[in-house]
Amino acid sequence: MPDQKIMESDHVLLYLDQRRTYLVKVEAGKTFHTHKGFIKFDDLIGKEYGSIVTSSLGVKFIALKPLLRDYIMKAVRRTQITYPKDIALIIIFSGIGPGSRVVEAGTGTGALTMALAHYVKPNGHVYSYEVRREFLETAEKNIKRAGLADFVELKNKDITAGIDEVDVDAVILDMATPWLVVSSAFKALKPCGTLVSFSPTIDQVVKTVEALGENGFIDIETVECLMRGMQTERGKTRPQTLMTAHTGYITFARKALKTPPTEMGQKGKYQR
Amino acid sequence: MPDQKIMESDHVLLYLDQRRTYLVKVEAGKTFHTHKGFIKFDDLIGKEYGSIVTSSLGVKFIALKPLLRDYIMKAVRRTQITYPKDIALIIIFSGIGPGSRVVEAGTGTGALTMALAHYVKPNGHVYSYEVRREFLETAEKNIKRAGLADFVELKNKDITAGIDEVDVDAVILDMATPWLVVSSAFKALKPCGTLVSFSPTIDQVVKTVEALGENGFIDIETVECLMRGMQTERGKTRPQTLMTAHTGYITFARKALKTPPTEMGQKGKYQR
Amino acid sequence: MPDQKIMESDHVLLYLDQRRTYLVKVEAGKTFHTHKGFIKFDDLIGKEYGSIVTSSLGVKFIALKPLLRDYIMKAVRRTQITYPKDIALIIIFSGIGPGSRVVEAGTGTGALTMALAHYVKPNGHVYSYEVRREFLETAEKNIKRAGLADFVELKNKDITAGIDEVDVDAVILDMATPWLVVSSAFKALKPCGTLVSFSPTIDQVVKTVEALGENGFIDIETVECLMRGMQTERGKTRPQTLMTAHTGYITFARKALKTPPTEMGQKGKYQR
Amino acid sequence: MPDQKIMESDHVLLYLDQRRTYLVKVEAGKTFHTHKGFIKFDDLIGKEYGSIVTSSLGVKFIALKPLLRDYIMKAVRRTQITYPKDIALIIIFSGIGPGSRVVEAGTGTGALTMALAHYVKPNGHVYSYEVRREFLETAEKNIKRAGLADFVELKNKDITAGIDEVDVDAVILDMATPWLVVSSAFKALKPCGTLVSFSPTIDQVVKTVEALGENGFIDIETVECLMRGMQTERGKTRPQTLMTAHTGYITFARKALKTPPTEMGQKGKYQR
Repeated sequence: MPDQKIMESDHVLLYLDQRRTYLVKVEAGKTFHTHKGFIKFDDLIGKEYGSIVTSSLGVKFIALKPLLRDYIMKAVRRTQITYPKDIALIIIFSGIGPGSRVVEAGTGTGALTMALAHYVKPNGHVYSYEVRREFLETAEKNIKRAGLADFVELKNKDITAGIDEVDVDAVILDMATPWLVVSSAFKALKPCGTLVSFSPTIDQVVKTVEALGENGFIDIETVECLMRGMQTERGKTRPQTLMTAHTGYITFARKALKTPPTEMGQKGKYQR
Repeated sequence: MPDQKIMESDHVLLYLDQRRTYLVKVEAGKTFHTHKGFIKFDDLIGKEYGSIVTSSLGVKFIALKPLLRDYIMKAVRRTQITYPKDIALIIIFSGIGPGSRVVEAGTGTGALTMALAHYVKPNGHVYSYEVRREFLETAEKNIKRAGLADFVELKNKDITAGIDEVDVDAVILDMATPWLVVSSAFKALKPCGTLVSFSPTIDQVVKTVEALGENGFIDIETVECLMRGMQTERGKTRPQTLMTAHTGYITFARKALKTPPTEMGQKGKYQR
Repeated sequence: MPDQKIMESDHVLLYLDQRRTYLVKVEAGKTFHTHKGFIKFDDLIGKEYGSIVTSSLGVKFIALKPLLRDYIMKAVRRTQITYPKDIALIIIFSGIGPGSRVVEAGTGTGALTMALAHYVKPNGHVYSYEVRREFLETAEKNIKRAGLADFVELKNKDITAGIDEVDVDAVILDMATPWLVVSSAFKALKPCGTLVSFSPTIDQVVKTVEALGENGFIDIETVECLMRGMQTERGKTRPQTLMTAHTGYITFARKALKTPPTEMGQKGKYQR
Repeated sequence: MPDQKIMESDHVLLYLDQRRTYLVKVEAGKTFHTHKGFIKFDDLIGKEYGSIVTSSLGVKFIALKPLLRDYIMKAVRRTQITYPKDIALIIIFSGIGPGSRVVEAGTGTGALTMALAHYVKPNGHVYSYEVRREFLETAEKNIKRAGLADFVELKNKDITAGIDEVDVDAVILDMATPWLVVSSAFKALKPCGTLVSFSPTIDQVVKTVEALGENGFIDIETVECLMRGMQTERGKTRPQTLMTAHTGYITFARKALKTPPTEMGQKGKYQR
C-alpha cells in the first residue's frame, strides 16, 4: 500500500500537543489561524499523513489522519456528547457490527451516531431520530465530515410516537424519556435484538428498567463506568488529579421472541 | 427479513437467568445436560431464535442468538481474559473499523482477537501472535465458534522477535512485555496508525510509555476503567456490593510519519 | 513510660498474618486453639505487648494491643457493620471530638458506637438507640471488650418515637428510615449541631435529604466513598483485583438556629 | 446547657450557601466585606450561634460555630492540603484518640495537625516537624485559630535527621520522602504503635512499603480512597459531574516489639 497523501477537501487533525489539536478541512489557497501562527493548507496538500507542518511563527504541528474518536470529540458540543468510554460500552453491549441495522434516538450532535455508523459499515445502516431540528443540522455536518453520511438516515421525528423500522438488530437510546420507547422498541427489534439506553439520572434508569421488565425484555443489566487518567513518568507516576465523576448509566437488555413477562416470572424481570 | 430459525451446527445461548447461561452447539440427536434437567437439541432445530425450550424437568430456557460479548465471556478461561469494558475501550481507542488491518499479541484465549475480528469484518484482517502453542488451540476453537476464523491469522511466533506485517492500522498488545514490541510496532504501522497496550501493573505501563516516547510515538495516554453494576429496583436502588477493582491500564499512542523523538522535543514525549 | 505488659483479662490481637488475626481475652490457665496449634495464655501474661508467642505446633504469633479498628472489625457480624472508611468519614463530618454528646441510632453490633465513644472520651457521651433487643446484647459485649462502656448509654427504644436528649452536638443515623428521625433530631441538636446519616440505597438518601431541607437543616451534602487496596511490590505494583463496590451513602447536614426553611429559600434546601 | 452566644474574638463561619462560606474572627467595631455587602461584627456579638445576620445589601448569612472540618478546609492553601477524606482515614487507621502522643511530619499548613490535635485532646499531644520555616508560621496561625495550640508542638526540624520523642503512639507522615523516616519511626514508636504515611505517587508508596518491611513493621497495607458527591433531588438524582480523581495513597503499618524482619519471614513483609 502506498503512503497516504493529504488531498484537497480532506479533514486533517493538526496536532500540537495532547491538549491542542484542531480538526480542519483542507482548502487550497486558504490558511488556518492558531495562537501559534497560521498554517497554509497549500503546505499540506500532497504531503504524507503524519508529516510535520510549520506555522508562520515557526511552531511545528503534525498533520494526522483523524480517527473515529477525533470526530467524536470534535463534534460541536451543542448537547452533552456521550463520552467515548460510554460509546465504547454501548457499542460492545449492543452486539452490533458490520451489516447491523440500528435505530438510535436522539441524534444530538451525532457523536454516538458516528460511532454506530462507523461500526455497521459497509453494509449496515443507522436510523437516527431527533425531534429538535437544529440538532439535526449540526449532526449532519459532523457525520458528513467523518465520511459516514452514506450509512445514516437522520429522521426529524419523535421516536416516542413510534419506530418506522422493523427487524432491527439494536435500538440505542440516549434521550430524556427512554422508558416511553421501550414498547415500540420491542416491536422494532428482531428476535434476540438488543436495547441499550444511556441516562444520567438514577430515576431514568429505574423507570427504564421497569418498562423493560414489563415489556418482556430479558437479561436486563445496568452499569456505570468510571475512567481515570494516569500521569505516567518514572518515579512520579500517579493517577490524574481531576476526573469526570459521572456521565451516565448504561442499561442493556435483550429481546427474546414474544416473551410475555408473566411467562418468565418475576426473577427474569430484574437484574440482581 | 424472515425470522431466523435455529439450524443444525448453530451456536445457541441457552438463557435461564442472568447468571446461568450456556453457549452450546446444536447437534441433531444429542442432548445438553444442566442441573435443571436435559434439553434435546432436536427440540431446538427449526424453531425461531428467541424461542422457549423446556428441559426434561420442566424448566424453561430461552434459546438466544449469541452476541459478540457472549462469545467473549464464554471463551475458555485458560488465561485472564480481557474484560468486555477493556475490549470496548481498546477498540474505540484503536480507531479500527471495517477494513482495518490489525496486529495483535498475545492471542491468549482469543477473546480480544474475536472482538478485533468482529469489527474489521468483512474486508479487514487480524494477525494474532502467540508463543504458547496450547493457547492457540483454545483460541482457534473460540474464534471458529464465533464464526470469525476467516478474518484472523493465528501465528505461533514471538512478536518480540519482529512483526511480519507492514502498513497496518493498529497494533494491539496484551502481553507481559509490551515495551519490547514498541520499536517493531512503529515500523509495522502505517503513518497515523495506533498502538494500544493493556497491562495489569503500573511498572509495565511506565516501561511502555517510556518506550513509546523514545520511539517517536505521540499523543500517549494511559487510562484505567472501573465498571460498577447497579441494582435497580424502585425504592431499593443501589450500586452492587462487589466489583472488580482492577483489570489493567490501557495505554494509547499514535504514530506520526517518521517522527524522531528529538524533533518533537520533550513535551511531546509524555502525556500530562 | 515503662513498656506495657500483657495482663490477665486483657484483650490481645493474635497476629499470624494480615488475613489471620484473632481478638482474644487473656484468661490464666486457659488456651486458645487455632488451626496452627494452641496457645497457652499463661505464656502471654507478663510479656510485653508486641511479643512473639509460639503455638503448640511451633507457629509464631505476635501479641498486639488492639486498636480501635480491630475492635470494630472483630465486632460480631450480626448486621452489616459500617466499614471503617465510612466510620472515619462519619466521625470527621460530624465534627465531634473529646467532650461531645452524641445521639446514635441504631446501635446494631456497636461498631459505629465504639468509634463514637472512642473519640468523645474522656468527658463526652454516646446515647445509642436500638429497637432490636438481641442486637443490644451483642453491642454491649463489643463495647465492653473495647473498654468503652463508660461512655455509652444503650437504649432499647425506637428513636422514631422521639429523642430524650437535648442540646446534643451530633445525631448519627445508621438505620432503615432516617427521614423519620430528622424532625426530632432538629429539636435534640444544639444550634450548629450536625446530623450524619448513612444509607445503602439512593431512595433512602432522597427521602432523608428532602426531610432535612423541609426541617430547616442547611449545608446538606451527600457523598459516597470508594476504598481500593493496592498490591505493592517493586516491579509488580497494581490495585487489588476485587473491592467492595458499595457500602452506603453518607449525608451530612447542620442545624442553624431556628431556621425555618421558608426563610432560607429554595436554594438553601438542596446541595448542588 | 445555655445557648452559646457569639463573643468578641470568636471565630465564626458565615454561611451564605454551600459554596460561599467565610471563616472570620469577630472584632468589635469592625466589618467584614463580601460581594453581597458588608457585615458589622457588632451585629453578631451577643447573638446566639446559628443566628441570621443581614448584610448592608440585605443578604442573609448564618453565623455558624465552625467545625473541625471548616478549620481544615479554610487552612490557608500554601501547600496541597490533605483532604478531609484522607485525614479521616489517617485518623482511624492510626488508632489514636484522646490521650495519644503523636509525631507528625511535615506540618505543611497544619490541616492534618489540627485534626490530630482535635482527636488527642484533652491530654494527648502532637509533635509536628517541618523544615520550611514559612509553613510553620501559616500552620501556627491556623492551629491557633482552631483553638488547638495547647496540644501541638511545632518543631522547625528535619525529621529525616531523627525523632526526638520516644514511646509515641503513632507516627504520621505526609512528606516527600517518608521512607527515610521509617527506621527512626520504629525507634520512636512504642510497641504496637502505628505508622501512617500519605503519598501522592506510586513510587513513594513502593519505597515506603519496602522500608517498612525491612525495618520490622507488620500488617502493612496501602489503600486509596475516592469520594464522590451526589446531587440529590427527587426525580433527578445522580452523581456529581466532576470529582477529585486522586489525592494520595495511605499506607498503614504496625510496630511489633523488636521484630527483626527475618524472624517473621517474607510473608510478613508485604501485604497481599
